[in-house]
Amino acid sequence: MKLKRWLPCIDWAASYDRATAGKDGLAAVIVTLMLIPQSLAYAMLAGLPPITGLYASIAPLVLYAIFGSSRTLAVGPVAVISLMTAAALAPMFAAGSAAYIGAAMLLAALSGLILLLMAVMRLGFLANFLSHPVISGFISASGILIALSQLKHILGVQADGQTVLQLLPSLAAQLPAINAPTLVIGGLCLLFLQLVRTRLKGLLLALGLSSGWADSLTKTGPVLTIIVSVLAVTLFNLADSGVRVVGSVPEGLPVLQLPTMDLQLAMQLLPAALLISLVGFVESVSVAQTLAAKRRERIDPNQELVGLGTANIAAAISGGFPVTGGFSRSIVNFDAGARTPMAGILTAVGIAITALFFTPLFHNLPHAVLAATIIVAVLSLVDLASLKRTWRFSKQDFIAQAATMVGVLFMGVEIGIMLGVGLSLLLFLWRTSRPHMAVVGQLPGSEHFRNIERFAVVQSDSVVSLRVDESLYFPNARYLEESITQLLVDYPNCKNLVLMCSGVNLIDASALDSLEAIVERLKVAGVQLHLSEVKGPVMDQLRRSEFLQHFGGQVFVSQYAAMQVLDASSVAKAARVNELVQFDLR
Amino acid sequence: MKLKRWLPCIDWAASYDRATAGKDGLAAVIVTLMLIPQSLAYAMLAGLPPITGLYASIAPLVLYAIFGSSRTLAVGPVAVISLMTAAALAPMFAAGSAAYIGAAMLLAALSGLILLLMAVMRLGFLANFLSHPVISGFISASGILIALSQLKHILGVQADGQTVLQLLPSLAAQLPAINAPTLVIGGLCLLFLQLVRTRLKGLLLALGLSSGWADSLTKTGPVLTIIVSVLAVTLFNLADSGVRVVGSVPEGLPVLQLPTMDLQLAMQLLPAALLISLVGFVESVSVAQTLAAKRRERIDPNQELVGLGTANIAAAISGGFPVTGGFSRSIVNFDAGARTPMAGILTAVGIAITALFFTPLFHNLPHAVLAATIIVAVLSLVDLASLKRTWRFSKQDFIAQAATMVGVLFMGVEIGIMLGVGLSLLLFLWRTSRPHMAVVGQLPGSEHFRNIERFAVVQSDSVVSLRVDESLYFPNARYLEESITQLLVDYPNCKNLVLMCSGVNLIDASALDSLEAIVERLKVAGVQLHLSEVKGPVMDQLRRSEFLQHFGGQVFVSQYAAMQVLDASSVAKAARVNELVQFDLR
Repeated sequence: MKLKRWLPCIDWAASYDRATAGKDGLAAVIVTLMLIPQSLAYAMLAGLPPITGLYASIAPLVLYAIFGSSRTLAVGPVAVISLMTAAALAPMFAAGSAAYIGAAMLLAALSGLILLLMAVMRLGFLANFLSHPVISGFISASGILIALSQLKHILGVQADGQTVLQLLPSLAAQLPAINAPTLVIGGLCLLFLQLVRTRLKGLLLALGLSSGWADSLTKTGPVLTIIVSVLAVTLFNLADSGVRVVGSVPEGLPVLQLPTMDLQLAMQLLPAALLISLVGFVESVSVAQTLAAKRRERIDPNQELVGLGTANIAAAISGGFPVTGGFSRSIVNFDAGARTPMAGILTAVGIAITALFFTPLFHNLPHAVLAATIIVAVLSLVDLASLKRTWRFSKQDFIAQAATMVGVLFMGVEIGIMLGVGLSLLLFLWRTSRPHMAVVGQLPGSEHFRNIERFAVVQSDSVVSLRVDESLYFPNARYLEESITQLLVDYPNCKNLVLMCSGVNLIDASALDSLEAIVERLKVAGVQLHLSEVKGPVMDQLRRSEFLQHFGGQVFVSQYAAMQVLDASSVAKAARVNELVQFDLR
Repeated sequence: MKLKRWLPCIDWAASYDRATAGKDGLAAVIVTLMLIPQSLAYAMLAGLPPITGLYASIAPLVLYAIFGSSRTLAVGPVAVISLMTAAALAPMFAAGSAAYIGAAMLLAALSGLILLLMAVMRLGFLANFLSHPVISGFISASGILIALSQLKHILGVQADGQTVLQLLPSLAAQLPAINAPTLVIGGLCLLFLQLVRTRLKGLLLALGLSSGWADSLTKTGPVLTIIVSVLAVTLFNLADSGVRVVGSVPEGLPVLQLPTMDLQLAMQLLPAALLISLVGFVESVSVAQTLAAKRRERIDPNQELVGLGTANIAAAISGGFPVTGGFSRSIVNFDAGARTPMAGILTAVGIAITALFFTPLFHNLPHAVLAATIIVAVLSLVDLASLKRTWRFSKQDFIAQAATMVGVLFMGVEIGIMLGVGLSLLLFLWRTSRPHMAVVGQLPGSEHFRNIERFAVVQSDSVVSLRVDESLYFPNARYLEESITQLLVDYPNCKNLVLMCSGVNLIDASALDSLEAIVERLKVAGVQLHLSEVKGPVMDQLRRSEFLQHFGGQVFVSQYAAMQVLDASSVAKAARVNELVQFDLR
């Protein structure tokens, strides 16, 4: 049983049969056709030789198939992680140099080790600190940044930079040097791929194909583009007209070797590796969970850490770079009928065959075509409308999302994501430091107490009931003191103050000190403090202090019980309304 | 009215009379006698010439009297802030050098500007992020560190260091060089001051003095020590025996001058200035609030920022160093009968007279005596028992407190305090990322719902009610999804799931996404989600999304209303228990 938990493949391998193999095989063919251009393109995006993209799509897929818990996740190079790889390495080494390639392998190794460490220490929850608005902002901004960074290949010029502020001027300066044949090829590819993405599916559906098949075929558009463009370059000898092509790609499988064990470099790469691990994990798990839910399968986030960790270590020792589960690729895999991770292993076989025999075919593949593939793929990730939805729902979430986007675009991917996470946390803390509080009264005909400003409730003359809508802890301890001081001014006839604690999920030592101070001040003013609806865990905690012994008031199980004891006349008044009033909260 | 808010002195100055002046004058005399040795000693602790202590006790007191909102706070150099000043400057300049003195003035200027900026931006709430355990740990550890740093003066040796790890070996290495006469003077002073502190009050009370007077007289012990020790050194010519004395102190008032405007240095000092401002503000405000509460006066924290800010600017331009409201000094001021800030102005006059005429008297004052004054004062701040109390109440608060102490002692004051604040926040976030959840049932004979594991409640067969004891936000969004998935396994007959939101004070965009995912998963399992007891602000927020339109369930005003609609038989069962059961929560 324990072995099964660590090796999820035992589960499906035991009952593997020919029918499943057929489905997996078909899916593998489609994913392979989609993965070849993607792996070449994302290697280019990461600043690496195209072959490393193929390398990163062989061993990692096999390892994930053995250790991963998702049945249909397709692992490999993805756009955002490739961008982060480039952002981490470009400032240190010349793109494509041996040192750069070694550092990319080291980055994958570090990322794999971090993921495995997180698995062992059960730190998967850390990924939760990347909030949805931050992830959404990060992916949209990364999409824009990636598209911009690939424009140079479409234009056939040289340009560099990690942010919009560096890329745009660099591109603008190069505009006079545009290579016309490159631009024509790049432009046509962009147009064709965009049409495939937006129209082909409708066409195929009209021709009677199933939705899943239509989707999957649509994704093979890039392979078609590659074939046509290689033919065109070869026939018209376009390489001589200044169209940059991939050039000679070594044939054969990657040689297994350990990445450079440069401790100083490892320390430098550690922050980038940490972010790559977290982002890759979050992206991968959310895809895996979405797909698993469709077939009632379950994902074990901790096992996903093991799967992705071993996949990245495999990438590191087989000449690759950081990998994770890809969004569009996994959906294609799922829609094409993949049933088990065997589809991933068969995909790896497909890529291995490509690396062994077909790399000479890529010699005349223009960079512009790969760039067009990337641009069309990443622009579909840009979701600016979500900014508007977030703005409407919550200004704080909007600030985090917008800050992430601005940070990524103008300061770099790492700063952007850290800015977003930091701001999310700070805004939450700031919000809890000024909690909402409501004086409550009894809803006539019920035992329920609500805000006097929102409901027609019955209020006692001598008892003030205050509901605090936040845990009581150090950032808001003093605020509570001030609010209650103000309450005494507003209710001069108050004799008993009931703190309704239904929203209080924690009382820490600072808040306890504040409560003691409040009790003293209230006593001086002739008011006694009571508590109501204190939850079990909070009550347990209060019992570990001396507060309950000397605060002089009572702890009531419910606000209604408190009012029965402290002001029975008010309760009677609320009960005289005989019919249960139906409150519609909408 | 507005002027009065910014100049609280208008309030008391208008009705100032001779009787009040008498009380203020008497308090001023006692505080002056206490402040003279303190200001000299804390200047020494800060690594500055003794005279700067007097300078820091003149202009700042006047400015605080004009702008501060506390009537009895006594401002000036304090131990903890002097230690922080030394910690910031000692690594940069030689103690006592002109550059060191200039940097101390700059530090006071920065601290003053930060406090004023906080006042303008109403950022006083930032001080709340220093939790009580962190402050307590910080003050105890600072006390130990200060006492250790002063030991060298008692032993008559040279030793340096900012942490225990540096101070102890430095002191140990110097043990053979102990100066016997210095040790005798220092030891006697320590003994005498400790006896004064612990026994004199009892003696004076036995002689029939009032408690307040006895307290105040006790605080003049250090002045007595100074007088005796100066006489002893002069009579026995002890300076020739290696007893280090203060030496010649310039006579006269400080010359007003702007501190060095070195922008680069200012940037370097900024983090230290920020911490000094926050710590000084927190310490000062808590003293001021304690004293104000005793006389039913009110403190305006924002006005305190103005008062302390102008006081520090005054210190900066009059040759001083960072100041704040002192704990023991303010209590002496209060107990000696001070009624208005005029007592502070009169104290400033007393110190000014000292600086003008009496500084030659300090020539033969031994460093050992000042050190003894400091040690006795700071050791009374060390409260190790609070560690035990905090441990009992909350392990998380204990971790923050212990980390602050260890940090201050072994890594330095700034690192220590940042470690404490950072840990407090992280532990809170970690805690909220795994919230407490309880399945609830109806308390028989009431409309109240409580945890089924703690109370004998009536549970419905088809409706599961889950109370989530935390705001729903990104760190716990996924945890909620997992918990509800688990719940479905535990309750296979569940048809309706009611999320009781009494403890939910916020729902952010990530949690909203999770709720949507939960609704989808529940629908697949044939379960409908409902909400109950959603608070007004959370309801307002949900209305700004489309969740309420398509989640398919209802929002009930109370858990009881939900059960009436979803399972009336369960409600009827709970009602059959006719007597109201009295639940005692203790």
